[in-house]
Amino acid sequence: MDRRVRAREFGVELGVMETGPLNAITDVEGVGVGHSTIIIGDSIRTGVTAVAPHRGNPYVEKVSAAVDLFNAYGKSTGLPQVMLEGVIETPILLTETLNTWRVADAVLDYFKERHGLEPTSINPVVGETNGSHLTENFGRHVGKEHVFEALDVAMSAEGRGRVPEGNVGGGTPMTGYGFKGGSGTASRRYANFTVGALVQLNCGRKEDLTIGGVPVGREVVLPESPEASPGNSIMMIVATDLRLTSRQLGKVAKRAALGLARTGSFGGNTSGDFTIAFSTGERGVEELVEMSPEMDRPDLGERFLDPVFRATVESTEEAIVNALFKAETMSGREGHVRYGLPYDQVERIFEKYGRKFSG
Amino acid sequence: MDRRVRAREFGVELGVMETGPLNAITDVEGVGVGHSTIIIGDSIRTGVTAVAPHRGNPYVEKVSAAVDLFNAYGKSTGLPQVMLEGVIETPILLTETLNTWRVADAVLDYFKERHGLEPTSINPVVGETNGSHLTENFGRHVGKEHVFEALDVAMSAEGRGRVPEGNVGGGTPMTGYGFKGGSGTASRRYANFTVGALVQLNCGRKEDLTIGGVPVGREVVLPESPEASPGNSIMMIVATDLRLTSRQLGKVAKRAALGLARTGSFGGNTSGDFTIAFSTGERGVEELVEMSPEMDRPDLGERFLDPVFRATVESTEEAIVNALFKAETMSGREGHVRYGLPYDQVERIFEKYGRKFSG
Amino acid sequence: MDRRVRAREFGVELGVMETGPLNAITDVEGVGVGHSTIIIGDSIRTGVTAVAPHRGNPYVEKVSAAVDLFNAYGKSTGLPQVMLEGVIETPILLTETLNTWRVADAVLDYFKERHGLEPTSINPVVGETNGSHLTENFGRHVGKEHVFEALDVAMSAEGRGRVPEGNVGGGTPMTGYGFKGGSGTASRRYANFTVGALVQLNCGRKEDLTIGGVPVGREVVLPESPEASPGNSIMMIVATDLRLTSRQLGKVAKRAALGLARTGSFGGNTSGDFTIAFSTGERGVEELVEMSPEMDRPDLGERFLDPVFRATVESTEEAIVNALFKAETMSGREGHVRYGLPYDQVERIFEKYGRKFSG
Amino acid sequence: MDRRVRAREFGVELGVMETGPLNAITDVEGVGVGHSTIIIGDSIRTGVTAVAPHRGNPYVEKVSAAVDLFNAYGKSTGLPQVMLEGVIETPILLTETLNTWRVADAVLDYFKERHGLEPTSINPVVGETNGSHLTENFGRHVGKEHVFEALDVAMSAEGRGRVPEGNVGGGTPMTGYGFKGGSGTASRRYANFTVGALVQLNCGRKEDLTIGGVPVGREVVLPESPEASPGNSIMMIVATDLRLTSRQLGKVAKRAALGLARTGSFGGNTSGDFTIAFSTGERGVEELVEMSPEMDRPDLGERFLDPVFRATVESTEEAIVNALFKAETMSGREGHVRYGLPYDQVERIFEKYGRKFSG
Repeated sequence: MDRRVRAREFGVELGVMETGPLNAITDVEGVGVGHSTIIIGDSIRTGVTAVAPHRGNPYVEKVSAAVDLFNAYGKSTGLPQVMLEGVIETPILLTETLNTWRVADAVLDYFKERHGLEPTSINPVVGETNGSHLTENFGRHVGKEHVFEALDVAMSAEGRGRVPEGNVGGGTPMTGYGFKGGSGTASRRYANFTVGALVQLNCGRKEDLTIGGVPVGREVVLPESPEASPGNSIMMIVATDLRLTSRQLGKVAKRAALGLARTGSFGGNTSGDFTIAFSTGERGVEELVEMSPEMDRPDLGERFLDPVFRATVESTEEAIVNALFKAETMSGREGHVRYGLPYDQVERIFEKYGRKFSG
Repeated sequence: MDRRVRAREFGVELGVMETGPLNAITDVEGVGVGHSTIIIGDSIRTGVTAVAPHRGNPYVEKVSAAVDLFNAYGKSTGLPQVMLEGVIETPILLTETLNTWRVADAVLDYFKERHGLEPTSINPVVGETNGSHLTENFGRHVGKEHVFEALDVAMSAEGRGRVPEGNVGGGTPMTGYGFKGGSGTASRRYANFTVGALVQLNCGRKEDLTIGGVPVGREVVLPESPEASPGNSIMMIVATDLRLTSRQLGKVAKRAALGLARTGSFGGNTSGDFTIAFSTGERGVEELVEMSPEMDRPDLGERFLDPVFRATVESTEEAIVNALFKAETMSGREGHVRYGLPYDQVERIFEKYGRKFSG
Repeated sequence: MDRRVRAREFGVELGVMETGPLNAITDVEGVGVGHSTIIIGDSIRTGVTAVAPHRGNPYVEKVSAAVDLFNAYGKSTGLPQVMLEGVIETPILLTETLNTWRVADAVLDYFKERHGLEPTSINPVVGETNGSHLTENFGRHVGKEHVFEALDVAMSAEGRGRVPEGNVGGGTPMTGYGFKGGSGTASRRYANFTVGALVQLNCGRKEDLTIGGVPVGREVVLPESPEASPGNSIMMIVATDLRLTSRQLGKVAKRAALGLARTGSFGGNTSGDFTIAFSTGERGVEELVEMSPEMDRPDLGERFLDPVFRATVESTEEAIVNALFKAETMSGREGHVRYGLPYDQVERIFEKYGRKFSG
Repeated sequence: MDRRVRAREFGVELGVMETGPLNAITDVEGVGVGHSTIIIGDSIRTGVTAVAPHRGNPYVEKVSAAVDLFNAYGKSTGLPQVMLEGVIETPILLTETLNTWRVADAVLDYFKERHGLEPTSINPVVGETNGSHLTENFGRHVGKEHVFEALDVAMSAEGRGRVPEGNVGGGTPMTGYGFKGGSGTASRRYANFTVGALVQLNCGRKEDLTIGGVPVGREVVLPESPEASPGNSIMMIVATDLRLTSRQLGKVAKRAALGLARTGSFGGNTSGDFTIAFSTGERGVEELVEMSPEMDRPDLGERFLDPVFRATVESTEEAIVNALFKAETMSGREGHVRYGLPYDQVERIFEKYGRKFSG
């Protein structure tokens, strides 16, 4: 049987920091996530994921934000303005590459129909990864109704709870390290703040997959080997309630790539590895410094960011691994198959490499 | 009568370099421009402009390119990938802000219907400025048919000839320095190369407008004063046939802002002032250096770029002024009116400031 | 007789905003400037200029700061850390290219000897332009004693008063638009804040010099024509008392290049055109918004920055022109001569171009 | 006995690619490395390392280069010009923080005395990390003679051979992950090209050290625990003979941080983690593509960079680990001690985690 579990449920613990109660980006108070998953016939496996930065209208209450463009092959919308103005004014949507622009356009309709706003200028932020291995994508099957579904969930109480992972939303057709990838999330808490990450995983080569230092990708045997470059791109979203400036969030965003590196990626050139970091601003830096006396060293500049960085690296790493643990084997376009990470093999490999776990 | 003429036809000469035969971006061999202009009823004045980098399929023959994000309020699509990969693989489209994403999406259809291609990944580059002073924009009136019209012209022999300016294409509803703005173009030639600029002008305050050093904006009296911040954003496209790398084109792109500065802008914060520079690669740098012996100084690095920079500054400046000279008075949404630059006053002002011209 | 005056004393008014009482960077409360000028024999004309951000110890009370690298040929020290950490922790020094590193090293000695500090890590910020046309420079004649002299003045009451301009400090051997260049300063006030600029002018070609829109460079006749590329680089420092973040100061820094453009530069490739902007943080943005009701438009983002941008453009432009007005004709290495801007010709040219002034 | 060996000599293999014959940056044809190590009395442990890009005069034959500023606390000189001009024109020097500027200044003397050049403008590139835990640093003990020594070796045949690692040159007093750090190097070969990395390791926390996925830092017990934040900064230099543009080298430079991440770093805020990548240009990209038919996919852009990226990640990771394996226990200023990685414990830990090796 293939009931899929998260990495920690399986017994794999990554990093040293404490997780939030849901171990999800929604542990950051107010953040909501919604998926709309589209699976039709043999060849359409796509969808859209929405991340709401808070319960209100982000066009009215913008959130501090920053972007890291680690790797170039990405079509995301809205990033230049976020980079320079330092704020996000819409929910963040993640989808399959060729749906990017239709999704951005539908965000406008959502503001009109749900918020009663018809702004003459608005900057929708949409990220993407390319799912064409498993889905027909030129048809651009993500419609306004799917964007609305994802957004409605993200804005609801349900959306602020547990976050479905694996083959859901924008992650539906995606590939991770030659295995079935998709959506994943995780979080960390420290002193007064929480950091959460959500990824749409679609990059990496099988032989490079490393989980907690264990070379899982090299050891696992699949029914058929994935092609040399099976996946493309990863979108990483990092949220925190710590009140950080856009410049500080820029540093946070850069750390997500370190979390990605821990899972084995070397940043393939045809990948688009972008990170968007935002802050809901509910927790103060002053309070953090008070709670961590060793950080109260003005001569060391912003050293209070260190636990935020560590939390970002660990959350991103675990979100990636969660996507792999939760994604089930999927077949799609032209009979292509992506296999879910095989639990039995993973257990044996972990034991071989001296890891004890409860799985 | 209000037959509108270009700056040089009026007698205003800007800069010191020689223009190309059309004094347009289309002087760069192979570059084509097409407009689709939409004027419906009292409140819809919008459109789209296409710039084709060459006669072929840019997805197959990509062109070297770079971006300068001088000012942040811009929703353009495709720029991050251009910045990092250094190439453009679609025509560049310019439109009204809220149509950005529909235009990008329609570019995919164009590739399918005109080139027979259904790429699983493609990076449409669409720039925008905000025309909501004169046009209802939330309705997003630029459809696939308009994108096709603009692209078809841009890909045709007609599109490689004279370029309509003023209230056309994406420039239709735009404002420049409180006057009617819109689309404008100009070019410069030197030694073996040509540089051409095309702008969609929608920024600046009336009192700041400077033409050839003359404070035209302060001196002109309009029937009614434009509001303090009448316009927003300028998209600047710079094309050259000189074979430059993306890094070199990045320097070129930054010079467009200097051309903008010459017309009086201080780079207002709500403006989105982006420049995209690309090279068709038909002319060699070696040949340029041979033709300009004073540049053959390896110890001075890339000094051969100096005439390219000057050509960029002058072309951009003149493209902006051409947009103002060619744009006719237009009324639109809610009875708003933008006045075309009044020729009679300009003539008197130029004479007051000691400029002789044939106008 | 060649008593040199500032542009406004001569009757040339640039821009529309009110200047500060001294029309100098020292109008920003607490900012001090000191020069050490070295003129020895026929061939040594060099020096160093210090800008103190406030009366205290900047290593202890760091100031918010940002950098714009408009053009690349620059050897400045300290900029990467300022770009990423967003603060400056030493005074800013400006000198002649090859003295850059000795000056930076001497800043450490100054902290030890004057502040009693021996930090194990410190980030001196030193900018430079190349004065080798008039000075022998490989000998690196700027010593510790000159750095101390400039810093001592900058930290004194004298240094917070009028600022010597022209052939002083780091500006001593410099060239501006083929004329004698050097140091210049100017300031602007608006609502509750002040912006001041100080430049070390060493760039531009004679034929490009434009003052208030008048093509002075093309019209002036000099005893001998400067070579085609007589100057290299400009360092621009912008100070404000408005409490801005590093990201916002990054926008401010970019506007200095627009002020440079108004004087005619196209940003020559062998120039190093860098801007450093910092804030003393004494004035609040909230107060500015209250004093300027038209700016209280949260939907327009940081529109309150517009007068800061305008003040930056105008201050930089006027600082450049002041450097030219104040610098006297100087001869130096190998008998090279740079001529001061000839007042009589400038007066005639301004009249020809319809400018009235009291000069 | 404490004869120190490199990681591979110890039996630890990192990555999957083939190393060069020396497994050092000097495997890139023409690249030379020289160290000058200064150990005086109880409190002075410092030095300088030189990396020559080729056998000639780099001021005359500049090399294509790029920079990645991953983390901000760095005082390096010369980086802005490298970033914008895309070339390096001097050897690269690595030293202890406060010696940075004296080292840069001494590079000028070297050009005069060894190359007979007195350039009026030159851009020395000097990187640094902070060794003040083990060395008195305010005295700036690295003199011109040490810079000359390091450069002379780097320019010699000896310098193009095996590279001393550990407590040598600029790495002398450095700390890595709470252990004794210092200098390290490694290389990779693929098809027609070689990539080599050289690091000056001074960052990381003990508990984070990961070698080949094994949590060595958490498991090792030291005689005394290092403080929470024992180290600061890492300088990473990546060289290749593949003819890459500065933009492509910019991508390469970013991958070094992924190699760093594999060893456990989260990029602490007070660290200055900079990478400089350069190309000697001896191998062609066309040849690489020919030798790797699977890369000949123009639709996949610069996919030929993938093995270069992997080689960069692996070389950087192994250079870091080599620095740790080679550095001996050192005591210094105020009796501070840094312990060399204890081989016996490492061996047991590796076995515990299922790694077989010949050590």
